[in-house]
Amino acid sequence: MPLPSPLTGVVPPVCTPLTPDREVDVPSLRRLVDHLAAAGVDGLFVLGSTSEAAYLTDRQRRLVTETVVSHAAGRLPVLAGVIDMTTPRVLDHVTAVTAAGADAVVVTAPFYTRTHPAEIARHFRLVAGRSPVPVIAYDIPVAVHTKLPAGLVLELAADGVLAGLKDSSGDLAAFREVVTGSRGLSGFSALTGAELTVDAALALGADGAVPGLANVDPDGYVRLDRLCRAGDWERARAEQERLCGLFRMTGAGDPARMGGSSAALGAFKAALHLRGVIDCPATAEPQVPLSQEETECVAKYLAAAGLT
Amino acid sequence: MPLPSPLTGVVPPVCTPLTPDREVDVPSLRRLVDHLAAAGVDGLFVLGSTSEAAYLTDRQRRLVTETVVSHAAGRLPVLAGVIDMTTPRVLDHVTAVTAAGADAVVVTAPFYTRTHPAEIARHFRLVAGRSPVPVIAYDIPVAVHTKLPAGLVLELAADGVLAGLKDSSGDLAAFREVVTGSRGLSGFSALTGAELTVDAALALGADGAVPGLANVDPDGYVRLDRLCRAGDWERARAEQERLCGLFRMTGAGDPARMGGSSAALGAFKAALHLRGVIDCPATAEPQVPLSQEETECVAKYLAAAGLT
Amino acid sequence: MPLPSPLTGVVPPVCTPLTPDREVDVPSLRRLVDHLAAAGVDGLFVLGSTSEAAYLTDRQRRLVTETVVSHAAGRLPVLAGVIDMTTPRVLDHVTAVTAAGADAVVVTAPFYTRTHPAEIARHFRLVAGRSPVPVIAYDIPVAVHTKLPAGLVLELAADGVLAGLKDSSGDLAAFREVVTGSRGLSGFSALTGAELTVDAALALGADGAVPGLANVDPDGYVRLDRLCRAGDWERARAEQERLCGLFRMTGAGDPARMGGSSAALGAFKAALHLRGVIDCPATAEPQVPLSQEETECVAKYLAAAGLT
Amino acid sequence: MPLPSPLTGVVPPVCTPLTPDREVDVPSLRRLVDHLAAAGVDGLFVLGSTSEAAYLTDRQRRLVTETVVSHAAGRLPVLAGVIDMTTPRVLDHVTAVTAAGADAVVVTAPFYTRTHPAEIARHFRLVAGRSPVPVIAYDIPVAVHTKLPAGLVLELAADGVLAGLKDSSGDLAAFREVVTGSRGLSGFSALTGAELTVDAALALGADGAVPGLANVDPDGYVRLDRLCRAGDWERARAEQERLCGLFRMTGAGDPARMGGSSAALGAFKAALHLRGVIDCPATAEPQVPLSQEETECVAKYLAAAGLT
Repeated sequence: MPLPSPLTGVVPPVCTPLTPDREVDVPSLRRLVDHLAAAGVDGLFVLGSTSEAAYLTDRQRRLVTETVVSHAAGRLPVLAGVIDMTTPRVLDHVTAVTAAGADAVVVTAPFYTRTHPAEIARHFRLVAGRSPVPVIAYDIPVAVHTKLPAGLVLELAADGVLAGLKDSSGDLAAFREVVTGSRGLSGFSALTGAELTVDAALALGADGAVPGLANVDPDGYVRLDRLCRAGDWERARAEQERLCGLFRMTGAGDPARMGGSSAALGAFKAALHLRGVIDCPATAEPQVPLSQEETECVAKYLAAAGLT
Repeated sequence: MPLPSPLTGVVPPVCTPLTPDREVDVPSLRRLVDHLAAAGVDGLFVLGSTSEAAYLTDRQRRLVTETVVSHAAGRLPVLAGVIDMTTPRVLDHVTAVTAAGADAVVVTAPFYTRTHPAEIARHFRLVAGRSPVPVIAYDIPVAVHTKLPAGLVLELAADGVLAGLKDSSGDLAAFREVVTGSRGLSGFSALTGAELTVDAALALGADGAVPGLANVDPDGYVRLDRLCRAGDWERARAEQERLCGLFRMTGAGDPARMGGSSAALGAFKAALHLRGVIDCPATAEPQVPLSQEETECVAKYLAAAGLT
Repeated sequence: MPLPSPLTGVVPPVCTPLTPDREVDVPSLRRLVDHLAAAGVDGLFVLGSTSEAAYLTDRQRRLVTETVVSHAAGRLPVLAGVIDMTTPRVLDHVTAVTAAGADAVVVTAPFYTRTHPAEIARHFRLVAGRSPVPVIAYDIPVAVHTKLPAGLVLELAADGVLAGLKDSSGDLAAFREVVTGSRGLSGFSALTGAELTVDAALALGADGAVPGLANVDPDGYVRLDRLCRAGDWERARAEQERLCGLFRMTGAGDPARMGGSSAALGAFKAALHLRGVIDCPATAEPQVPLSQEETECVAKYLAAAGLT
Repeated sequence: MPLPSPLTGVVPPVCTPLTPDREVDVPSLRRLVDHLAAAGVDGLFVLGSTSEAAYLTDRQRRLVTETVVSHAAGRLPVLAGVIDMTTPRVLDHVTAVTAAGADAVVVTAPFYTRTHPAEIARHFRLVAGRSPVPVIAYDIPVAVHTKLPAGLVLELAADGVLAGLKDSSGDLAAFREVVTGSRGLSGFSALTGAELTVDAALALGADGAVPGLANVDPDGYVRLDRLCRAGDWERARAEQERLCGLFRMTGAGDPARMGGSSAALGAFKAALHLRGVIDCPATAEPQVPLSQEETECVAKYLAAAGLT
């Protein structure tokens, strides 16, 4: 299906359920898609950071995209991450995910290499020139160690290179510059990836949100989105605060024992497992799994947020 | 051929010559191998950062490894980088390069994700457990944004997980800790990737060097290595200083216009082209090419170092 | 006068006007205080980053505090920064500014040294234990290179060590954690220093704002604060966007020629000079002054925002 | 006394002994000076990072400088750090330490503010223009968060602005560029602050070293310096390795409980106390003191290095 122009609303970055031996758990993935679709989300984003794309082999990435595209079956647009270091490698992923039916690709700045803004611009232009589907920029400095300058995003948007931005930088002021600067550009989608300030992003004019936590509580984010659209800011804030409380589950994993990815993705998957959506909470190697006690802590956050 | 234990001497990270349309230039690559072998280097390292591994597709990586392995034809051991974000993806590269005949794999810490030292250790243990050839750790914080702690390297070395370290951190004090700490571990190779302080690294006990600049002047590095082994520190220093002067070619590219990778790799390839070793100085996308004027500046550095 | 508990509203970080030979320009500083007071601001913050505290000698700091305290004359509370590297040096500044009449002190985490969260906590506890006036934490990672963890701020707030937080981290999600977590703590002030998202900060419950740009347009920020308090979010957003447009003046200075402090403080002072509030736009050494052309660019932003 | 031109040999950054209530312990400081002078060091550097300058009040800084200058009594040149954020504040320290008799000042790049290389250059030029004694640049990125570019140091050296460089960056390749680039500049001193690679620095042509660990074992560093000057690289390496083993005392403090400054300075002072040089091992606030057990660990490193 063609990507809505602009894409709005809640577009969860879909977790990738794994079996105990770290294969893609296709039945669980289908159930997760149903879980999200039933809540009324507006699109699905596969192979993002929350999907553990960095940990999936090319074969697994293909399987994930095919599974989600075929199971979504046109009900929802499917965006696919093409996360890799540089242009030639990203282009291979573009070929793979569009062959598998993705409706848009989500592209980060180059990483591993030492990059210059001129090279970042060149990267997006080359990828867009070769992609059969729209390109959405993925600003995630914590992963790629450069921040996409707002001016660059707007320049590429004005030139038709970018159809949107997923902003996971946490820098709301810079995101605002893109939101206000792109107002005249019909079809450009400014999406926030910051799950704790979705109300703020929508209030300043964002088109939608791509919150990792929406795997666990898609109904909450759909509700939040609707309250914001209705201008009911007081209840929106209350809903957002409930979700912020739920997000604290990502602090269950002991930082002395594991990294931030292990703790956040481990908690999301533990919660999906506890909620009965997926069969196994395993995360990909070399992430450290949550302990029994840490998983019980996740359960408490679910209960406190009314998800039991 | 089995990896020498320990591997010593000069092991250049082999540049990947490209055609004007960015395909691997196999004839030029073979000539580059001959150029290095003729100088008397002790091994070849393909698919490292200097090889533009981050820019090569999987197909190109395979072609490079096969070409170099078959052309080296047992004359020299071939180490292959398996640069990717996490364990499962790295393991796919291990399968590919060992199928193509690599004698060892060179593995970085995970990147893109937010990692913990415990996860880095787990990563190396898992890769080593599945690799049919020895594993050499690649410490390159400028690319992966974490530094391999010396204590961790020594622990993994003592456990037989690591057969060596290529240190591109620029932190000579930490490297020294590995060198002195691994003295009792027979077969462990401590290799420096810092081309400007090879004399210092060898003086404190390093086994060898993996200098990117050795593509341009392999004779110089082989000479330097021999002077150091002979304890002729005065002439070693003079040779190293000549190579430092040559290295300034990496400053020819205007930093206002390009990133550090473009400038360094662009200069090495321009020099190889000017020396008649490779047919085309092109670097992979999205790197910015050197201008005509910048290439002339590279030529001047070659001339100043006596390479014309 | 005692610090309001909680302090709310607009508390500009007061610029420090300088003479052409870099002495504190007392008459201009008094006019600036009047300019801010006339707009209806709720407090004054001297010796913050916007005040060029990092550039002022101890003698100049004393003169600034005395001038503003005596000219405010009890009309407005005066907060004073005590920016220095560690506890003993900060305590000397606490003595100086409270002798000069400051109603509260604003304290950063230690810098220059390599600090641990336990040491940061110890620092605030020691300073608060010796300060005769309330202590407000100043979270400014861009300057001190550590972020105050929300949990630490809340722990110190609960223990009565901190009377408030000025958040200049740009991390709205972490700020929100402090805002919601401190709701039960009567008297604690959560203030945002992020001038481009004041509406968002107030919407999620912040008590007030400390916007550097309020030097140039205090009326705008007072208006914005009132619209937010009235729940008129649509007009608040429009006012905030006008101020975001005005803030672009900080991009007038050429980043190839000067650092971020020079550009931002140079623009604010150029604007104050153009508006007739201060006599001279000089910034302290070693900052690079704006050129004539760059100053004209600032004038255009003033005109575009209706300030002429 | 005039600063030797160039200054060569071992110039310890002198620790600042404190009493249990954190006052400068003048008798201990005098004993420390004697301890260093007796070992044959070539100069004394007060108010550096190892001296806890960041923690000393202006009054304490003055007392330290006066004490060391008067006790050195012309036997040794005394360099003094003037560590502060920007030019005007640094100039006040220049006035203070030269009034107290310092023979040279040691100046970092500006910090706390966001600086540009042009501003760093301006800073050094302004300070040198007003200093009655020679200016030595202090490159310490871990503290000030910018690296002094080698080209800038050489430009300022050629212009007579800088009389030397103390390099605490750990970047031996960049330091080498300064060493070789300044060879023609008579009187310029290139000093390394990296205590674990003094042999390497001297081998490539450095004039001397400023090792914090020389407080604990000045005889070792003097011996090392003489072996290097004599070209006895083998014995120099052995001596350096013994000192590297001793330096491990800085790892005695638990990193889960304290920062790097606390651990390093705490260990140096514990060792000086254990060796009977100073009366009390206290470090300045808010540093965390070593535990009894950690202090015993320091004692073991002293014993292992033959210092009992």
